[in-house]
Amino acid sequence: MKTSLGAKTIVYPTPVLVVGTYDAGGRPNVMTAAWGGICCSKPPCIAISVRKATYTYGNLMERKAFTVSLPSRDRVAEADYFGIASGRDVDKFAATGLTPVRSDLVDAPYVQEFPLVLECKVLLVSELGLHVHFVGEILDVKVDDQGLDARGNPSVERIAPVMYAPGESAYYGMGEHLAKAFAHGRRFEVSG
Amino acid sequence: MKTSLGAKTIVYPTPVLVVGTYDAGGRPNVMTAAWGGICCSKPPCIAISVRKATYTYGNLMERKAFTVSLPSRDRVAEADYFGIASGRDVDKFAATGLTPVRSDLVDAPYVQEFPLVLECKVLLVSELGLHVHFVGEILDVKVDDQGLDARGNPSVERIAPVMYAPGESAYYGMGEHLAKAFAHGRRFEVSG
Repeated sequence: MKTSLGAKTIVYPTPVLVVGTYDAGGRPNVMTAAWGGICCSKPPCIAISVRKATYTYGNLMERKAFTVSLPSRDRVAEADYFGIASGRDVDKFAATGLTPVRSDLVDAPYVQEFPLVLECKVLLVSELGLHVHFVGEILDVKVDDQGLDARGNPSVERIAPVMYAPGESAYYGMGEHLAKAFAHGRRFEVSG
Repeated sequence: MKTSLGAKTIVYPTPVLVVGTYDAGGRPNVMTAAWGGICCSKPPCIAISVRKATYTYGNLMERKAFTVSLPSRDRVAEADYFGIASGRDVDKFAATGLTPVRSDLVDAPYVQEFPLVLECKVLLVSELGLHVHFVGEILDVKVDDQGLDARGNPSVERIAPVMYAPGESAYYGMGEHLAKAFAHGRRFEVSG
Protein backbone atom coordinates (compact mmCIF):
# COMPACT_ATOMS: atom_id res chain seq x y z
CA MET A 1 0.00 0.00 0.00
CA LYS A 2 1.43 3.39 -1.04
CA THR A 3 0.80 6.70 0.70
CA SER A 4 0.58 9.90 -1.34
CA LEU A 5 2.92 12.61 -0.08
CA GLY A 6 2.01 15.33 -2.58
CA ALA A 7 4.16 17.20 -5.08
CA LYS A 8 7.66 17.08 -3.56
CA THR A 9 11.28 16.79 -4.60
CA ILE A 10 12.01 13.40 -3.06
CA VAL A 11 14.40 11.07 -4.86
CA TYR A 12 17.38 9.06 -3.60
CA PRO A 13 20.22 9.56 -4.00
CA THR A 14 20.96 13.11 -5.08
CA PRO A 15 24.58 14.16 -5.58
CA VAL A 16 26.58 16.76 -3.65
CA LEU A 17 27.87 18.98 -6.44
CA VAL A 18 30.14 21.84 -5.39
CA VAL A 19 29.79 24.39 -8.19
CA GLY A 20 32.77 26.71 -8.69
CA THR A 21 32.50 30.09 -10.44
CA TYR A 22 34.25 33.47 -10.62
CA ASP A 23 32.39 36.68 -9.84
CA ALA A 24 32.66 39.93 -11.78
CA GLY A 25 35.72 40.90 -9.74
CA GLY A 26 37.44 37.57 -10.42
CA ARG A 27 36.92 36.22 -6.90
CA PRO A 28 36.37 32.47 -6.70
CA ASN A 29 33.11 31.22 -5.21
CA VAL A 30 31.60 27.80 -4.53
CA MET A 31 28.07 26.68 -3.76
CA THR A 32 26.67 23.23 -3.14
CA ALA A 33 23.86 21.92 -5.34
CA ALA A 34 21.97 18.65 -4.92
CA TRP A 35 19.71 19.42 -7.86
CA GLY A 36 21.70 18.14 -10.84
CA GLY A 37 23.09 15.15 -12.66
CA ILE A 38 24.57 13.86 -15.89
CA CYS A 39 22.26 14.64 -18.82
CA CYS A 40 24.02 13.60 -22.04
CA SER A 41 26.77 11.14 -23.05
CA LYS A 42 27.81 12.81 -26.34
CA PRO A 43 28.75 15.57 -25.83
CA PRO A 44 29.25 14.69 -22.16
CA CYS A 45 27.05 17.10 -20.19
CA ILE A 46 25.97 17.72 -16.62
CA ALA A 47 22.96 19.74 -15.50
CA ILE A 48 22.88 21.87 -12.35
CA SER A 49 20.02 23.98 -11.01
CA VAL A 50 20.49 27.14 -8.96
CA ARG A 51 18.10 29.77 -7.63
CA LYS A 52 18.29 33.25 -9.17
CA ALA A 53 18.89 34.68 -5.71
CA THR A 54 22.26 32.94 -5.41
CA TYR A 55 25.56 34.65 -6.05
CA THR A 56 26.47 31.73 -8.31
CA TYR A 57 23.55 32.50 -10.64
CA GLY A 58 25.00 35.88 -11.61
CA ASN A 59 28.45 34.37 -12.02
CA LEU A 60 27.14 31.62 -14.30
CA MET A 61 25.24 34.08 -16.48
CA GLU A 62 28.30 36.34 -16.77
CA ARG A 63 31.07 33.77 -17.25
CA LYS A 64 29.12 30.94 -18.93
CA ALA A 65 31.44 28.46 -17.22
CA PHE A 66 31.61 26.42 -14.03
CA THR A 67 33.35 23.53 -12.39
CA VAL A 68 31.91 20.74 -10.26
CA SER A 69 34.10 19.47 -7.41
CA LEU A 70 32.96 16.35 -5.56
CA PRO A 71 33.78 16.29 -1.85
CA SER A 72 35.00 13.09 -0.23
CA ARG A 73 33.32 12.01 3.00
CA ASP A 74 35.92 13.71 5.19
CA ARG A 75 34.92 17.05 3.63
CA VAL A 76 31.16 16.88 4.16
CA ALA A 77 31.25 19.78 6.68
CA GLU A 78 32.92 22.05 4.12
CA ALA A 79 30.44 21.02 1.42
CA ASP A 80 27.55 21.71 3.79
CA TYR A 81 28.95 25.16 4.62
CA PHE A 82 29.16 25.93 0.89
CA GLY A 83 25.40 25.40 0.77
CA ILE A 84 24.69 27.63 3.79
CA ALA A 85 26.82 30.76 3.29
CA SER A 86 26.62 33.16 0.33
CA GLY A 87 29.60 34.33 -1.68
CA ARG A 88 28.01 37.76 -1.56
CA ASP A 89 28.87 37.95 2.15
CA VAL A 90 31.93 35.78 2.70
CA ASP A 91 34.94 34.23 0.99
CA LYS A 92 34.04 30.56 1.42
CA PHE A 93 37.52 29.36 0.46
CA ALA A 94 39.10 31.56 3.18
CA ALA A 95 36.49 30.48 5.75
CA THR A 96 37.21 26.79 5.22
CA GLY A 97 40.91 26.98 4.40
CA LEU A 98 40.38 25.22 1.06
CA THR A 99 42.28 26.22 -2.08
CA PRO A 100 40.79 27.58 -5.32
CA VAL A 101 42.57 26.44 -8.49
CA ARG A 102 42.01 28.24 -11.79
CA SER A 103 40.86 25.81 -14.49
CA ASP A 104 43.03 25.99 -17.58
CA LEU A 105 40.05 24.95 -19.75
CA VAL A 106 37.15 27.09 -18.54
CA ASP A 107 36.76 30.45 -16.80
CA ALA A 108 36.04 28.98 -13.36
CA PRO A 109 37.87 27.73 -10.25
CA TYR A 110 37.73 24.30 -8.62
CA VAL A 111 38.53 22.97 -5.14
CA GLN A 112 42.05 21.55 -4.96
CA GLU A 113 41.34 19.35 -1.92
CA PHE A 114 38.32 17.60 -3.49
CA PRO A 115 39.14 14.34 -5.29
CA LEU A 116 37.09 14.64 -8.50
CA VAL A 117 36.56 17.72 -10.66
CA LEU A 118 34.56 18.44 -13.83
CA GLU A 119 35.31 21.51 -15.95
CA CYS A 120 32.25 22.74 -17.84
CA LYS A 121 31.07 25.42 -20.23
CA VAL A 122 27.42 26.47 -20.22
CA LEU A 123 25.49 25.19 -23.26
CA LEU A 124 21.88 25.83 -22.32
CA VAL A 125 19.95 27.84 -19.71
CA SER A 126 16.27 27.12 -18.90
CA GLU A 127 14.16 29.05 -16.42
CA LEU A 128 11.99 26.43 -14.75
CA GLY A 129 10.55 28.32 -11.77
CA LEU A 130 12.35 28.82 -8.47
CA HIS A 131 15.41 27.23 -10.06
CA VAL A 132 17.25 28.01 -13.27
CA HIS A 133 18.59 24.91 -14.99
CA PHE A 134 22.07 25.06 -16.56
CA VAL A 135 23.38 22.37 -18.88
CA GLY A 136 27.16 22.36 -19.06
CA GLU A 137 29.39 20.49 -21.47
CA ILE A 138 32.06 18.56 -19.55
CA LEU A 139 35.42 19.38 -21.14
CA ASP A 140 37.54 17.36 -18.75
CA VAL A 141 37.39 15.17 -15.65
CA LYS A 142 40.32 15.43 -13.24
CA VAL A 143 40.85 12.93 -10.42
CA ASP A 144 43.34 12.85 -7.55
CA ASP A 145 45.92 10.13 -8.06
CA GLN A 146 44.84 8.59 -4.73
CA GLY A 147 41.33 8.28 -6.23
CA LEU A 148 42.52 6.06 -9.10
CA ASP A 149 42.79 2.29 -9.03
CA ALA A 150 45.85 0.31 -10.15
CA ARG A 151 44.76 0.57 -13.80
CA GLY A 152 44.30 4.35 -13.62
CA ASN A 153 40.50 4.30 -13.53
CA PRO A 154 38.54 6.31 -10.99
CA SER A 155 37.59 4.20 -7.98
CA VAL A 156 34.36 4.93 -6.11
CA GLU A 157 35.77 3.43 -2.94
CA ARG A 158 38.93 5.53 -3.06
CA ILE A 159 37.08 8.74 -3.96
CA ALA A 160 34.53 8.07 -1.17
CA PRO A 161 31.85 10.45 -2.44
CA VAL A 162 28.87 11.63 -0.42
CA MET A 163 25.22 11.87 -1.32
CA TYR A 164 22.29 13.91 -0.11
CA ALA A 165 18.86 12.70 0.92
CA PRO A 166 16.13 15.32 0.43
CA GLY A 167 13.32 15.24 2.98
CA GLU A 168 15.66 14.05 5.71
CA SER A 169 18.13 16.79 4.72
CA ALA A 170 21.01 14.48 5.52
CA TYR A 171 24.27 13.34 3.99
CA TYR A 172 25.07 9.66 3.55
CA GLY A 173 28.17 7.79 2.50
CA MET A 174 28.42 5.38 -0.39
CA GLY A 175 27.37 1.84 0.56
CA GLU A 176 28.71 -1.51 -0.52
CA HIS A 177 29.04 -2.83 -4.07
CA LEU A 178 25.82 -4.64 -5.00
CA ALA A 179 26.18 -5.79 -8.61
CA LYS A 180 27.74 -5.13 -12.01
CA ALA A 181 25.48 -3.20 -14.38
CA PHE A 182 24.47 -4.59 -17.79
CA ALA A 183 25.18 -8.05 -16.39
CA HIS A 184 23.25 -8.78 -13.19
CA GLY A 185 19.88 -8.36 -14.93
CA ARG A 186 20.60 -10.88 -17.70
CA ARG A 187 18.98 -13.60 -15.57
CA PHE A 188 15.64 -12.30 -16.86
CA GLU A 189 16.53 -12.80 -20.51
CA VAL A 190 14.70 -15.68 -22.13
CA SER A 191 17.17 -18.17 -23.56
CA GLY A 192 16.68 -19.81 -26.90
CA MET B 1 48.17 15.78 -7.96
CA LYS B 2 45.23 15.33 -10.32
CA THR B 3 45.21 13.25 -13.50
CA SER B 4 43.19 14.39 -16.50
CA LEU B 5 40.83 11.70 -17.79
CA GLY B 6 39.32 13.65 -20.70
CA ALA B 7 35.72 14.55 -21.45
CA LYS B 8 33.70 11.85 -19.69
CA THR B 9 30.44 11.41 -17.80
CA ILE B 10 31.91 10.55 -14.41
CA VAL B 11 30.13 11.74 -11.29
CA TYR B 12 29.13 9.92 -8.09
CA PRO B 13 26.49 9.04 -7.23
CA THR B 14 24.01 8.87 -10.08
CA PRO B 15 20.47 7.63 -9.37
CA VAL B 16 18.75 4.51 -10.69
CA LEU B 17 15.56 5.95 -12.16
CA VAL B 18 13.12 3.43 -13.62
CA VAL B 19 11.10 5.45 -16.11
CA GLY B 20 7.56 4.16 -16.83
CA THR B 21 5.64 5.03 -20.01
CA TYR B 22 2.82 3.69 -22.20
CA ASP B 23 3.40 2.97 -25.87
CA ALA B 24 1.00 3.83 -28.70
CA GLY B 25 -0.85 0.58 -28.07
CA GLY B 26 -1.23 1.28 -24.35
CA ARG B 27 1.32 -1.32 -23.30
CA PRO B 28 3.35 -0.38 -20.21
CA ASN B 29 7.12 -0.11 -20.54
CA VAL B 30 9.98 0.68 -18.19
CA MET B 31 13.58 1.66 -18.80
CA THR B 32 16.35 2.49 -16.36
CA ALA B 33 18.09 5.86 -16.58
CA ALA B 34 21.07 7.00 -14.53
CA TRP B 35 21.21 10.34 -16.34
CA GLY B 36 18.78 12.51 -14.40
CA GLY B 37 17.99 14.26 -11.15
CA ILE B 38 15.84 16.85 -9.42
CA CYS B 39 16.03 20.18 -11.27
CA CYS B 40 13.56 22.58 -9.63
CA SER B 41 11.88 22.97 -6.22
CA LYS B 42 8.88 25.08 -7.34
CA PRO B 43 7.28 23.62 -9.33
CA PRO B 44 8.92 20.35 -8.21
CA CYS B 45 10.63 18.92 -11.29
CA ILE B 46 12.88 16.03 -12.23
CA ALA B 47 14.99 15.74 -15.37
CA ILE B 48 15.66 12.48 -17.20
CA SER B 49 17.71 11.92 -20.35
CA VAL B 50 17.03 9.17 -22.88
CA ARG B 51 18.48 8.30 -26.25
CA LYS B 52 16.26 8.79 -29.30
CA ALA B 53 16.81 5.13 -30.19
CA THR B 54 14.96 3.94 -27.08
CA TYR B 55 11.35 2.80 -27.10
CA THR B 56 10.76 5.13 -24.15
CA TYR B 57 11.70 8.18 -26.25
CA GLY B 58 8.76 7.66 -28.62
CA ASN B 59 6.42 7.01 -25.70
CA LEU B 60 7.51 10.21 -23.95
CA MET B 61 7.04 12.31 -27.09
CA GLU B 62 3.60 10.82 -27.65
CA ARG B 63 2.19 10.77 -24.11
CA LYS B 64 4.09 13.70 -22.56
CA ALA B 65 4.01 11.85 -19.26
CA PHE B 66 6.15 9.42 -17.27
CA THR B 67 6.67 7.98 -13.83
CA VAL B 68 9.89 7.32 -11.97
CA SER B 69 9.97 4.22 -9.74
CA LEU B 70 12.97 3.77 -7.43
CA PRO B 71 14.05 0.16 -6.89
CA SER B 72 15.07 -0.98 -3.44
CA ARG B 73 18.33 -2.93 -3.15
CA ASP B 74 16.61 -6.32 -3.39
CA ARG B 75 15.35 -5.32 -6.89
CA VAL B 76 18.65 -4.28 -8.43
CA ALA B 77 18.59 -7.21 -10.89
CA GLU B 78 15.18 -6.15 -12.21
CA ALA B 79 16.33 -2.53 -12.53
CA ASP B 80 19.44 -3.66 -14.40
CA TYR B 81 17.35 -5.75 -16.79
CA PHE B 82 15.15 -2.71 -17.49
CA GLY B 83 18.30 -0.98 -18.75
CA ILE B 84 19.38 -3.92 -20.96
CA ALA B 85 16.21 -5.06 -22.76
CA SER B 86 14.07 -2.93 -25.09
CA GLY B 87 10.29 -2.61 -24.81
CA ARG B 88 10.26 -2.91 -28.58
CA ASP B 89 11.23 -6.57 -28.23
CA VAL B 90 9.90 -7.75 -24.89
CA ASP B 91 7.34 -7.06 -22.18
CA LYS B 92 9.70 -6.22 -19.33
CA PHE B 93 6.97 -6.47 -16.71
CA ALA B 94 6.11 -10.00 -17.83
CA ALA B 95 9.78 -11.01 -18.00
CA THR B 96 10.43 -9.95 -14.40
CA GLY B 97 7.04 -10.74 -12.90
CA LEU B 98 6.60 -7.16 -11.68
CA THR B 99 3.26 -5.36 -11.79
CA PRO B 100 2.40 -2.22 -13.80
CA VAL B 101 0.00 0.17 -12.07
CA ARG B 102 -1.79 2.91 -14.02
CA SER B 103 -1.17 6.32 -12.48
CA ASP B 104 -4.38 8.16 -11.73
CA LEU B 105 -2.61 11.51 -12.25
CA VAL B 106 -0.60 11.08 -15.45
CA ASP B 107 -0.81 8.91 -18.56
CA ALA B 108 1.92 6.47 -17.48
CA PRO B 109 2.40 3.29 -15.43
CA TYR B 110 4.62 2.72 -12.39
CA VAL B 111 6.10 -0.38 -10.74
CA GLN B 112 3.95 -1.60 -7.85
CA GLU B 113 6.78 -3.49 -6.13
CA PHE B 114 9.17 -0.48 -6.02
CA PRO B 115 8.96 1.56 -2.80
CA LEU B 116 9.01 5.15 -4.11
CA VAL B 117 7.22 6.55 -7.17
CA LEU B 118 7.06 9.97 -8.83
CA GLU B 119 4.27 10.84 -11.27
CA CYS B 120 5.33 13.44 -13.83
CA LYS B 121 4.11 15.39 -16.82
CA VAL B 122 6.61 16.57 -19.43
CA LEU B 123 7.25 20.34 -19.28
CA LEU B 124 10.30 20.77 -21.49
CA VAL B 125 12.23 18.75 -24.08
CA SER B 126 15.81 19.66 -25.11
CA GLU B 127 17.87 17.83 -27.72
CA LEU B 128 21.38 17.83 -26.33
CA GLY B 129 23.16 15.32 -28.58
CA LEU B 130 23.05 11.55 -28.09
CA HIS B 131 20.51 12.14 -25.33
CA VAL B 132 17.26 14.07 -25.28
CA HIS B 133 16.64 15.80 -21.97
CA PHE B 134 13.10 15.77 -20.54
CA VAL B 135 12.05 17.96 -17.62
CA GLY B 136 8.98 16.62 -15.88
CA GLU B 137 6.85 18.32 -13.26
CA ILE B 138 6.35 16.02 -10.26
CA LEU B 139 2.62 15.91 -9.49
CA ASP B 140 2.85 13.41 -6.65
CA VAL B 141 5.26 11.24 -4.68
CA LYS B 142 3.95 7.88 -3.48
CA VAL B 143 5.81 5.76 -0.93
CA ASP B 144 5.19 2.25 0.38
CA ASP B 145 3.98 2.34 3.96
CA GLN B 146 6.97 0.16 4.94
CA GLY B 147 9.19 2.96 3.54
CA LEU B 148 7.82 5.56 5.96
CA ASP B 149 9.12 6.27 9.45
CA ALA B 150 6.96 6.53 12.57
CA ARG B 151 6.05 10.14 11.72
CA GLY B 152 5.00 9.29 8.17
CA ASN B 153 8.07 10.72 6.47
CA PRO B 154 10.01 8.76 3.85
CA SER B 155 12.99 6.97 5.38
CA VAL B 156 16.13 6.41 3.32
CA GLU B 157 17.04 3.38 5.41
CA ARG B 158 13.64 1.75 4.98
CA ILE B 159 13.43 2.52 1.25
CA ALA B 160 17.01 1.21 0.77
CA PRO B 161 17.63 2.86 -2.60
CA VAL B 162 20.45 1.96 -4.96
CA MET B 163 22.84 4.14 -6.89
CA TYR B 164 24.90 3.75 -10.02
CA ALA B 165 28.59 4.47 -10.49
CA PRO B 166 29.50 5.37 -14.09
CA GLY B 167 32.94 4.25 -15.24
CA GLU B 168 32.81 1.17 -13.01
CA SER B 169 29.29 0.43 -14.34
CA ALA B 170 28.29 -0.88 -10.94
CA TYR B 171 25.45 -0.52 -8.47
CA TYR B 172 26.07 0.42 -4.86
CA GLY B 173 23.87 0.55 -1.78
CA MET B 174 23.30 3.61 0.35
CA GLY B 175 25.96 4.00 3.03
CA GLU B 176 25.72 5.24 6.60
CA HIS B 177 24.34 8.56 7.81
CA LEU B 178 27.19 11.10 7.91
CA ALA B 179 25.70 14.42 8.97
CA LYS B 180 22.65 16.67 8.99
CA ALA B 181 22.59 19.21 6.17
CA PHE B 182 22.37 22.96 6.83
CA ALA B 183 23.81 22.24 10.27
CA HIS B 184 27.10 20.34 10.14
CA GLY B 185 28.82 23.14 8.16
CA ARG B 186 27.97 25.90 10.63
CA ARG B 187 31.31 25.28 12.35
CA PHE B 188 32.87 27.46 9.63
CA GLU B 189 30.67 30.44 10.37
CA VAL B 190 32.54 33.28 12.04
CA SER B 191 30.93 34.13 15.37
CA GLY B 192 30.41 37.71 16.48
